[in-house]
Amino acid sequence: MIYLDNHATTPVDPRVLDAMLPYLKERFGNAASRSHRLGWEAEEAVERARAQVARLVGADPREIVFTSGASEANNLALKGAAGRRGEKNHVVASPLEHPSVRETVEHLAARGCDVTWLPVDREGRVRPDDVAGAITPRTFLVTVMAANNEIGTVQPVREIGRIAAECGILFHTDATQAVGKVALDVRADGVHLAALTAHKIFGPKGSGALYVRQGTALEPQTHGGGQERGLRSGTLNVPGIVGLGAACDICRTGREGEAARLARLRDRLEGLLAAAEARANGPREGRLPNNLHISFPGVDAESLMLAVPEVAVSSGSACASGSMEISRVLKAIGMRPDAARGSIRFGLGRFNTEAEIDEAARLFVAAATRLRKVARR
Amino acid sequence: MIYLDNHATTPVDPRVLDAMLPYLKERFGNAASRSHRLGWEAEEAVERARAQVARLVGADPREIVFTSGASEANNLALKGAAGRRGEKNHVVASPLEHPSVRETVEHLAARGCDVTWLPVDREGRVRPDDVAGAITPRTFLVTVMAANNEIGTVQPVREIGRIAAECGILFHTDATQAVGKVALDVRADGVHLAALTAHKIFGPKGSGALYVRQGTALEPQTHGGGQERGLRSGTLNVPGIVGLGAACDICRTGREGEAARLARLRDRLEGLLAAAEARANGPREGRLPNNLHISFPGVDAESLMLAVPEVAVSSGSACASGSMEISRVLKAIGMRPDAARGSIRFGLGRFNTEAEIDEAARLFVAAATRLRKVARR
Repeated sequence: MIYLDNHATTPVDPRVLDAMLPYLKERFGNAASRSHRLGWEAEEAVERARAQVARLVGADPREIVFTSGASEANNLALKGAAGRRGEKNHVVASPLEHPSVRETVEHLAARGCDVTWLPVDREGRVRPDDVAGAITPRTFLVTVMAANNEIGTVQPVREIGRIAAECGILFHTDATQAVGKVALDVRADGVHLAALTAHKIFGPKGSGALYVRQGTALEPQTHGGGQERGLRSGTLNVPGIVGLGAACDICRTGREGEAARLARLRDRLEGLLAAAEARANGPREGRLPNNLHISFPGVDAESLMLAVPEVAVSSGSACASGSMEISRVLKAIGMRPDAARGSIRFGLGRFNTEAEIDEAARLFVAAATRLRKVARR
Repeated sequence: MIYLDNHATTPVDPRVLDAMLPYLKERFGNAASRSHRLGWEAEEAVERARAQVARLVGADPREIVFTSGASEANNLALKGAAGRRGEKNHVVASPLEHPSVRETVEHLAARGCDVTWLPVDREGRVRPDDVAGAITPRTFLVTVMAANNEIGTVQPVREIGRIAAECGILFHTDATQAVGKVALDVRADGVHLAALTAHKIFGPKGSGALYVRQGTALEPQTHGGGQERGLRSGTLNVPGIVGLGAACDICRTGREGEAARLARLRDRLEGLLAAAEARANGPREGRLPNNLHISFPGVDAESLMLAVPEVAVSSGSACASGSMEISRVLKAIGMRPDAARGSIRFGLGRFNTEAEIDEAARLFVAAATRLRKVARR
């Protein structure tokens, strides 16, 4: 099978698994065990991984809080900040966020927070001026994702960070899709809170992190043993954390070359799919290098995917699990329902080769052509 | 190293790791991916594991919610129930709970819940009559752990469940230490909510579950993609979940024989340690079969552990990470501070052999004798 669904999840890099395995075998200690070698080894491994994660995003290791993934990290960031918001009561949010941000902001709204949902342009991009215009003296937080999980729009994180800094408010970014693909430097970008997860960067599921800038007050969301400086209690998932650290390290060292390679393969795929009259959606510039969201006019995406079982892709957004509705993101960028229904999301990844891209394109072009013929009869 | 710290964490059973590995390698799909084989495979694996967990505790698979561990499960149970409590506003709680229960109940108290902390006897046991006496018309929940993580006290879960049922209130039990060691049948025991975690039963860290009896209303604590029937959003940790399922399966099939074997080894260890005048703490009856909490009079536990680096054990409670204070549990059962400071918690496990027990006892007896001699000089 040719796997082109890397926005949904990624295979674990064999180097990541190799790093994890000792902690699933002989090094099985609890990082909170203070009285023997197995505990110390586990704690050392966790701190090594913390430094690896921090280095990828330009943070200090003490600013990294391990979680079970990006959804938990986003929840902790948003509810945690809301729990320490004091008198302020207003959130500014992008409307095209992943559900773990959008639903959490809606939860805060139901609890009495005022929320301003920002407008976006036809590429799904937030305008920094709109952020500046939405901020009031009662705003405590802005949340805008670093890159979109459907159409790959990269947001102007640094410009938004500058505005947040000028206004003295917190800036949270869901960096899940951006990490390892576009440059992210939490200091230079003016980010206070950033969520990421291992399984989108060739690490294991069940392991993520929240960057929490020093001095940012958060209310803990999981109470208990006081792990992670009291912000996230619970026995640390040592193998998962080691895997996240290793995944971050690999991303960091090869990022620019890999991003260029992915963009080249992605553009090649788009070029080849033009033979089936497929038209890419979303931004032309400022898009994730591995993202191709593309419509096959007159073809139903579900039928197309069924016709090409050799290639793993998604239709619409894989995040709206099982939903047949057109995603908010596609609506927001003004896609017509029929174009949206004929759209496929290709997400390229580290292990894709040019030969795979060519074969996937050939299969999709053939299937789209066949399906159109059937429809015309 | 002889590992006798199985209350803190356990090694992953090689059979569990074997079950997990395909999902860390070629079967890496996202269980929410609806459009290709990798997603379907992942979903099937999750549902198989759900059935395995359910079977161990006598539940229906639809009543199992996967979490990142017992701390998250306890938080979800307690905050989730509190979020749907309606007019009722009173919780009855055992005072010797794990911090993930105790701190969460304290959090609810800070948010306006009334809490009655139950008395316990000299073995740390809650009396069902006290539970009955504490319940008022405003009580919505009772929480009492199934077995204690320090002194191993098994609580009268079924009797408490009967009282909760008679009063029409929810009964939550933290079953983390009990699962796989003592019989647990959520239906017969009258439990509505039960937390457990893989890494205490020879499964991986980062994977746990909450049993939620059908019809029990909980407010979600992690918002997002709507996984786990909306109760716990976030990409499912497929390998971790597969590991939890496999771990539950192994526990279930061999539980009674293994419990008897552990109790025999534990009693043997206690007998051998008598040569160093060591005296067991906690209950004589109704104790976890693998638990031996034991004091070496006149010896400091930290020095003793340093003198026996060949054996991994804990002093006091490993859960109060890094704390030098005497644990609440030991205080509650009336241990004097010096006896508490000279106490070691042995937690036996599946992979311990009689030879290991004999060797550990020999080392501890020799070290305690030596330390006492030094102290006398």
